[in-house]
Amino acid sequence: MTSSDLQEQMGLKALNLLQEDADKIEKLIEVQMENLATRYCPLYEEVLDTQMYGFSRQVDYAVRIGLIQEAVGKGIMTKLERNLALLYEAMNNKD
Amino acid sequence: MTSSDLQEQMGLKALNLLQEDADKIEKLIEVQMENLATRYCPLYEEVLDTQMYGFSRQVDYAVRIGLIQEAVGKGIMTKLERNLALLYEAMNNKD
Repeated sequence: MTSSDLQEQMGLKALNLLQEDADKIEKLIEVQMENLATRYCPLYEEVLDTQMYGFSRQVDYAVRIGLIQEAVGKGIMTKLERNLALLYEAMNNKD
Repeated sequence: MTSSDLQEQMGLKALNLLQEDADKIEKLIEVQMENLATRYCPLYEEVLDTQMYGFSRQVDYAVRIGLIQEAVGKGIMTKLERNLALLYEAMNNKD
């Protein structure tokens, strides 16, 4: 394997792992959206904030190592933050 | 550069960045230790726990990518956790 193949491979692995973790958070957001009317759990917000913080640290770290581009990292974070904002909006409208 | 040189270089970079972040947490612990008797701030514990959580996510992520060995990651975490435990012990003895 050449060094540029390896760099590409590691970058892809770093990105796939981030996407996996982002999907888990998306899933948490979806479940809470679906249960908004029925089984609302007040701890959800705290769990989601903690997950988002941990995830943002991973994204930053990948950018600092040079495995993913800053714009790509920002894109992943923005998408998650947007969905989280939609959830919080729906939660507020429920009150 | 050969691919094994690159792998080594990226592994070193990943490790150095972790060490930098661990040093910042160590510094927070030290400062709190020094100020135990005089300027104790109750938010410190929460800040440290949050920092530790974010850091543990970075370490896990580096291990999952294959940039650092699991044992190395565990070693870094254990050292930090030990120092944090010493701080909490000192805080409890103060009460």
